[in-house]
Amino acid sequence: MTSGTSDNGSSDSSGTLRVAAAQINTTVGDIDGNARLIESWIGRAQEQGAEIVAFPELTITGYPPEDLVLYDNFIEANIAALKRIAATVGNIVALVGFVDSKDGKLYNAAAVLHEGKVVTTYRKIHLPNYGVFDERRYFTAGNECPVLSIRGVLVGINICEDIWEPIGPSEVQCASGAQIIVNLNSSPFESGKQGHRIDIVTEMSRRNRVYTLYANQVGGQDELVFDGGSMLSGPDGNLIGTAARFEEVLLVADIDVGALEKSRLQHQSHAISPIELDRIGKSKTIEIDTASPTDRPKLPELSIHRLDRLDAVYRALIVGTRDYLKKTGFMKVAIAVSGGIDSAIVTAIAADAIGAENVVGVALPSRYSSEGSISDAEDLCSRLGVELWKIPIEPGHSAFEEMLSEAFEGTEPGLSEENAQARIRGNIMMSIANKFGWLVLTTGNKSEMATGYATLYGDMAGAYAVIKDVPKTLVYELCEHRNKRGPGAPIPRAIIEKPPSAELRPDQLDEDSLPPYDQLDRVIHMYIEKRISPDLIVKKELELGANGASEAIVRRIVRLIDINEYKRLQSPPGVKITGLAFGKDRRLPIASGWQR
Amino acid sequence: MTSGTSDNGSSDSSGTLRVAAAQINTTVGDIDGNARLIESWIGRAQEQGAEIVAFPELTITGYPPEDLVLYDNFIEANIAALKRIAATVGNIVALVGFVDSKDGKLYNAAAVLHEGKVVTTYRKIHLPNYGVFDERRYFTAGNECPVLSIRGVLVGINICEDIWEPIGPSEVQCASGAQIIVNLNSSPFESGKQGHRIDIVTEMSRRNRVYTLYANQVGGQDELVFDGGSMLSGPDGNLIGTAARFEEVLLVADIDVGALEKSRLQHQSHAISPIELDRIGKSKTIEIDTASPTDRPKLPELSIHRLDRLDAVYRALIVGTRDYLKKTGFMKVAIAVSGGIDSAIVTAIAADAIGAENVVGVALPSRYSSEGSISDAEDLCSRLGVELWKIPIEPGHSAFEEMLSEAFEGTEPGLSEENAQARIRGNIMMSIANKFGWLVLTTGNKSEMATGYATLYGDMAGAYAVIKDVPKTLVYELCEHRNKRGPGAPIPRAIIEKPPSAELRPDQLDEDSLPPYDQLDRVIHMYIEKRISPDLIVKKELELGANGASEAIVRRIVRLIDINEYKRLQSPPGVKITGLAFGKDRRLPIASGWQR
Repeated sequence: MTSGTSDNGSSDSSGTLRVAAAQINTTVGDIDGNARLIESWIGRAQEQGAEIVAFPELTITGYPPEDLVLYDNFIEANIAALKRIAATVGNIVALVGFVDSKDGKLYNAAAVLHEGKVVTTYRKIHLPNYGVFDERRYFTAGNECPVLSIRGVLVGINICEDIWEPIGPSEVQCASGAQIIVNLNSSPFESGKQGHRIDIVTEMSRRNRVYTLYANQVGGQDELVFDGGSMLSGPDGNLIGTAARFEEVLLVADIDVGALEKSRLQHQSHAISPIELDRIGKSKTIEIDTASPTDRPKLPELSIHRLDRLDAVYRALIVGTRDYLKKTGFMKVAIAVSGGIDSAIVTAIAADAIGAENVVGVALPSRYSSEGSISDAEDLCSRLGVELWKIPIEPGHSAFEEMLSEAFEGTEPGLSEENAQARIRGNIMMSIANKFGWLVLTTGNKSEMATGYATLYGDMAGAYAVIKDVPKTLVYELCEHRNKRGPGAPIPRAIIEKPPSAELRPDQLDEDSLPPYDQLDRVIHMYIEKRISPDLIVKKELELGANGASEAIVRRIVRLIDINEYKRLQSPPGVKITGLAFGKDRRLPIASGWQR
Repeated sequence: MTSGTSDNGSSDSSGTLRVAAAQINTTVGDIDGNARLIESWIGRAQEQGAEIVAFPELTITGYPPEDLVLYDNFIEANIAALKRIAATVGNIVALVGFVDSKDGKLYNAAAVLHEGKVVTTYRKIHLPNYGVFDERRYFTAGNECPVLSIRGVLVGINICEDIWEPIGPSEVQCASGAQIIVNLNSSPFESGKQGHRIDIVTEMSRRNRVYTLYANQVGGQDELVFDGGSMLSGPDGNLIGTAARFEEVLLVADIDVGALEKSRLQHQSHAISPIELDRIGKSKTIEIDTASPTDRPKLPELSIHRLDRLDAVYRALIVGTRDYLKKTGFMKVAIAVSGGIDSAIVTAIAADAIGAENVVGVALPSRYSSEGSISDAEDLCSRLGVELWKIPIEPGHSAFEEMLSEAFEGTEPGLSEENAQARIRGNIMMSIANKFGWLVLTTGNKSEMATGYATLYGDMAGAYAVIKDVPKTLVYELCEHRNKRGPGAPIPRAIIEKPPSAELRPDQLDEDSLPPYDQLDRVIHMYIEKRISPDLIVKKELELGANGASEAIVRRIVRLIDINEYKRLQSPPGVKITGLAFGKDRRLPIASGWQR
């Protein structure tokens, strides 16, 4: 096995295949743009002397194309683009994801392109239909497991979820002699998921004594961010190399399959019966006639890229925000900067994503705003180089009191009056965005979205909710991370250290309405992400002693989460960073009689 | 066959089974409430002498329970409720829908309850995963097709989608001798769907020479309305009787299976190979030992209930609105009454749904409102008996001009200023709702939701969008229908006859911004509901000659629909009445490069 090294002529390369994973950033629906991107990266792979280049899952349509695939003309355009790309392919073998269509059925497929033709097609067998995935809404499962023979090297191809099942097409292909598995992915980011992917890929390699090239996409698509992390693993279950995360890159490696047979002989393969394999799909081997490579450039050593947890999350938030703007065609954003920690981190992310010159902060002080709020907002924006507008909301605030005075006569001021202020701010932000063709980024975090501690049409008004999946305790960590990471240390300590407040009435503090954030976030994690029942959460919190939330607090948090489904239904999308985000990941009735 | 007639003793009833369909209104998640409801309707069925009573699909959890079923404690509570109900069942056979759980897998199931026990369970085989349905997200398909033998009469049971496939469990059960098929449903309303259901049920009956009892639920659940229309069909494909639509009712009938064998002998059955049947599932026959009935009450003649198209839609809108309020626990609503036709029909629906005394209209005139708008709103509310509040928005309007004067200096007034007015109104409506614990009903129709002719956080602000699936042309028809239907003729002719206007700038008319509504609605129907490609729509419109939309208009409508996905994502739910509504039915990316 000589991966990541060079050979300088055909004499050395007889048992060595040079493979590439093109970790690119497609746009859902932009079939023509994606096709051009694919063609350009096939060119790059050829320049690197690759004999096979793998693209991400559903490359041509982008992932996930959702109900677009239910339009005939969309499917036709995707197949026409595949044929156009195929026509440009020469001696390299390109594996391109597309939607295949036959007899009124759709397939999540990978085409094998070579010498101007679609040589064969693999149709995904394991279709995920959980979490953010709806693949059985659209696709029929395939039942064939092709193995390509390229200069005598046997390569099995399959797609994403196919390798997450204990027995899948890889097992069928390896039973037919496959020496390399190429797996095409559109696997979205979650904090900690790359480690899990490495486990899955290396374990599958080890189990089958096979090399595995895992190709994933990068970029943001609505609430999903794809983080790349394409990789190559070896037949001993060793991780050979990975691509950088969150950026377009070509991972190229030489795989020498010569030593594989010995390794396989020594390996006690786990026995899978032919009947079990046959249930997955039928194997077929396709000969691909390629010329032996000559004069290939020397490859750099492969390396293993690792990102720490906070760095990965912060970069996911940047990419999600940047691509949502780019892919919806907006260049500039407005953010209501309150002087609090949530709007501070969102402003920093926005400036890092699209440049400080494309971010406008708007301070919207009311009669209840503290002096510190405005000076903290000023300090933040000045450190980031972000323009800050100041629009006091008193005229609107007074006008609302006047307009509603008769209707509200004899009532005590309360939540209605607090929400009205937030909605005046929302209206100003949207007016600015509408006037200048910008988007509004909202600043609510996951702890607020969970408990409904946010005003619908007020601070929730906007196109993209950058940190809606980031719990408040993680917001603090990300602020410290951003200050350490540089450039500069843009988030003032005053913002990090002051007690959180919505400032919608005099001397209001979050902790008057909500439990301490460490308890809140732990309960949210258990109840939402782990789907643990309230009874068990109470038990687990009790075990923590003095630091644990009381039963009453747990029940209150759960109840708040349950009754605020209607707000989340109307909230803008935002970057998924946890194992279970609000949005497609979590689908609950609004009218519900369930009381846990 | 003596359906809908009586027998007065066991001597007459040897080959006759008295069957009932309990067309009830469950609430998603309200397991205890649903269990009480089931017990009470089992009692009613017993009073009617029924020997078997069928409830709707997923009776115990309500339908659709969505991600609630992913919580273990929800599943446990549902099974505990099933056992409690079983314990109360005596000599009658009750078929109750619930979520079955085994080895970590969930099943959409029907339990057969008799004499205190769960006798057997059927697990749904065909799981819909299209349109509003996500059943493969949750459930594993069953593979057994039980046939109950009740006093020698063979009864096959299955669930909803199972009979919509050409070969399903009914075919397996009939091959095993089933004389009656009982099919449990949660089939949501669409205009025209009941006719389609009758076709499916009677054709399945005819094909298999079998009686079919089809039990459906009633009531609203978020964006779905279940319209009932439970029915019995005979072995010749004849419709014997139906339940009334949109109301809780027990459909009871006597089925004499004596004549069935002769009918079957004369009938050339369509041949299905044993292999094909085996692929669906294995048949098993379960003996149920019931006492022969005595002294059963005489049954009224069955009848066939038909509703005309407008009546059905109008009732669906009433039930959807009523149940959304009831099931979320709200008693009263506020509606912004503009003097236009959309708010007029919504106010009428609300008054019909929860009583005029629980509806507050709010007129929110601006400097651009015509005199007629206010007097028309007054006329409408006075005819309906709805209280009307008047809150001129000028103070807010001026305050926003003041607050934004610096930021907007040197710009021309436009969409931003128009939207700000709508958002001031939205804020007032939400303030009122928050203050008094009411919900806001929004008034946008499908033509507006499709083209984005509505202001996010403005007129779109509210809990429930009653007519969001009703195209503008149908709004006109419904107004005429409501005036004919009575009581009274609440919608003034002035409202029906004036040209539609948003009144957000002087002399504004909808037709300045939008194509004529007949063209618009036709294109929306083709593009959204029929998923016809724009090229084909252009062709079809050209064929209409002078009445057809021009190519430029078609392309413009399609483009407007495409670019307004972001607004619809943040819109409140509303009643689905067409074959394809905005909401769960239609899932599209927001960031999309697709241009048709």
